[in-house]
Amino acid sequence: MAISHVRIIGSGLIGSSIGLGLVQNQIEVSMVDTDPAAQALAQDLMASSPHTEPDLVIIATPLGSISQVLKGLDTSTVKLGFMDISSVKTKVLSDVEGSGLSRTRFLPSHPMAGREVGGAQSARADLFAGRPWIIDSHGVDPELRAAGLEIIKLLGATPIELVSREHDQAVALVSHLPQIVSSLLAGQLQGANPQWLDLAGAGLRDTVRIAGSNPDLWKEIISANSGAIAPLLKKFIEDAENLLSKIDNEDFIAEVIEGGAQGRALIPGKHGGKQRSYTYLPIIIEDKPGQLASLFDECARAQVNVEDLAIEHSPGQFTGLITLALSESDAAKLSDHLRAHGWNVHAQR
Amino acid sequence: MAISHVRIIGSGLIGSSIGLGLVQNQIEVSMVDTDPAAQALAQDLMASSPHTEPDLVIIATPLGSISQVLKGLDTSTVKLGFMDISSVKTKVLSDVEGSGLSRTRFLPSHPMAGREVGGAQSARADLFAGRPWIIDSHGVDPELRAAGLEIIKLLGATPIELVSREHDQAVALVSHLPQIVSSLLAGQLQGANPQWLDLAGAGLRDTVRIAGSNPDLWKEIISANSGAIAPLLKKFIEDAENLLSKIDNEDFIAEVIEGGAQGRALIPGKHGGKQRSYTYLPIIIEDKPGQLASLFDECARAQVNVEDLAIEHSPGQFTGLITLALSESDAAKLSDHLRAHGWNVHAQR
Repeated sequence: MAISHVRIIGSGLIGSSIGLGLVQNQIEVSMVDTDPAAQALAQDLMASSPHTEPDLVIIATPLGSISQVLKGLDTSTVKLGFMDISSVKTKVLSDVEGSGLSRTRFLPSHPMAGREVGGAQSARADLFAGRPWIIDSHGVDPELRAAGLEIIKLLGATPIELVSREHDQAVALVSHLPQIVSSLLAGQLQGANPQWLDLAGAGLRDTVRIAGSNPDLWKEIISANSGAIAPLLKKFIEDAENLLSKIDNEDFIAEVIEGGAQGRALIPGKHGGKQRSYTYLPIIIEDKPGQLASLFDECARAQVNVEDLAIEHSPGQFTGLITLALSESDAAKLSDHLRAHGWNVHAQR
Repeated sequence: MAISHVRIIGSGLIGSSIGLGLVQNQIEVSMVDTDPAAQALAQDLMASSPHTEPDLVIIATPLGSISQVLKGLDTSTVKLGFMDISSVKTKVLSDVEGSGLSRTRFLPSHPMAGREVGGAQSARADLFAGRPWIIDSHGVDPELRAAGLEIIKLLGATPIELVSREHDQAVALVSHLPQIVSSLLAGQLQGANPQWLDLAGAGLRDTVRIAGSNPDLWKEIISANSGAIAPLLKKFIEDAENLLSKIDNEDFIAEVIEGGAQGRALIPGKHGGKQRSYTYLPIIIEDKPGQLASLFDECARAQVNVEDLAIEHSPGQFTGLITLALSESDAAKLSDHLRAHGWNVHAQR
């Protein structure tokens, strides 16, 4: 059956972004929230109105309140069933079991998307475009599964089937452990001499970037997935202790650094495929309006595709270094083009 | 006295970059290296030639070979004295003491600059432009100190006075501990299911970026500065163990995440001053040549200054999300301008 009415319980970033995306696809959406102001804002944003018999209900509340939401559901009026969007799937399945709702009527799912800001006011209809969206359709009614897949497709995401237990292990490794490590590292900076922090370079900044995340969100995720996280954190601590005990042993230190480089190399490239190998082209620019435009204008004239880029300002100075990542042939082409037009290019010789 | 002849021992990235920068400033440079090929390459790069009585000798060898270099020096022919550029300063000072060279004739220094690639072939005359360059001129002959400062200034760096012991503690915190933590985290990815790594987002990628660093370089730095690193790593491990023991305690987890956010907020902004607060403007662009140029052309027309930016490609798709960081007023101005010209801007409402 075609989906025409969806109820979304929870009007935060994810729920409201789903709502916006569905409304753009001519699906009627009703937004619900325990906070009347959040509900009103979300409803206004997508001109949604309550309706009594939704085809599908999406539970988009914080992880900690899902069991309560499940208890309060009137399941008889929902045609196809329910899905959720939370970050820890075994926790939700145990909540579902406890609620008496049949597993056939519940599709656990997890869109791997987010922003550094929350709330309906930060919602974007395209939040999920091109992002992985995990579902566990084990034991789920085929019609509900098809409806879930349709919604994921309408929102532009890529569905990935993964059993809930395995999902939780995967995100413990690629998301929850990095969050913990980054937060613990950044925590060591508290109380440091400000002059020391003046020496911080891009390395420290990158490593603690995600330490700025929301504590309320993360306390629920980490405690709910503690079973999968604990062995990973334990192993990480053991490796750290091992290094500490051999902190004067150059051969062992080299092994640790080399092991990290090998682990990092396993992460796929941005396009979801094999890691690409880019050539990096450092260019000195003046740090003022118009310089970047001129530079990218040259890139367009040279007909090259910039794959990635980074800007680094120098402390106390107002020139900047921009590093472009391109394919090897594009980098050679652009380097020649820019030099010929007077740009300060520092290609690897 | 004006500096006219500098000998640089060690023709790697740092030594050769200093050489290139000095040659551009009409200073005669002779490059020396135990590897004849490296020495020949560096000499060719900067058209340098050996000379017998340098005003100043810069020791730019790996940390582990400095004591050997010091032993082989003919100090009588060097007018002003010696300086080094290594990452751990107390180690070098103890090498100097062991060599019998007077402390007045040796200026310990550390340029906070580098690249992800090494060797003379990667050298750049502007490598140090705008970067901090630490010196410890305690007990150093004033003429040697003045010469060191002149060289730092010629290379465009910003000199910072810091006692060697304090320097080593500072870099242990802002550089060496982050390197260790990032490498240990990336090491956990070894042997992971490749499908799990497909779920990796920007958070993991940023946190392990520096894990790609050179093991040979880092084994020397970490072992040489183990005295300053060990207590920091120990404290980090204690904090990690504490979290592991309370991994189900939401309040404690929130404290750890919040503590990380507070630590991170202490890192100064890119311009070396107080951390700036930027407004982030996400814009959807087509991932093809010319799109970035058009976008920055609009930025120039709107007369705004882009402080930082990031490109995120979506896996399996060929549209990209570019996020610009601007001042609040520039972000508002640019957002209006771009919307008026048909761009897909997703500002925070």
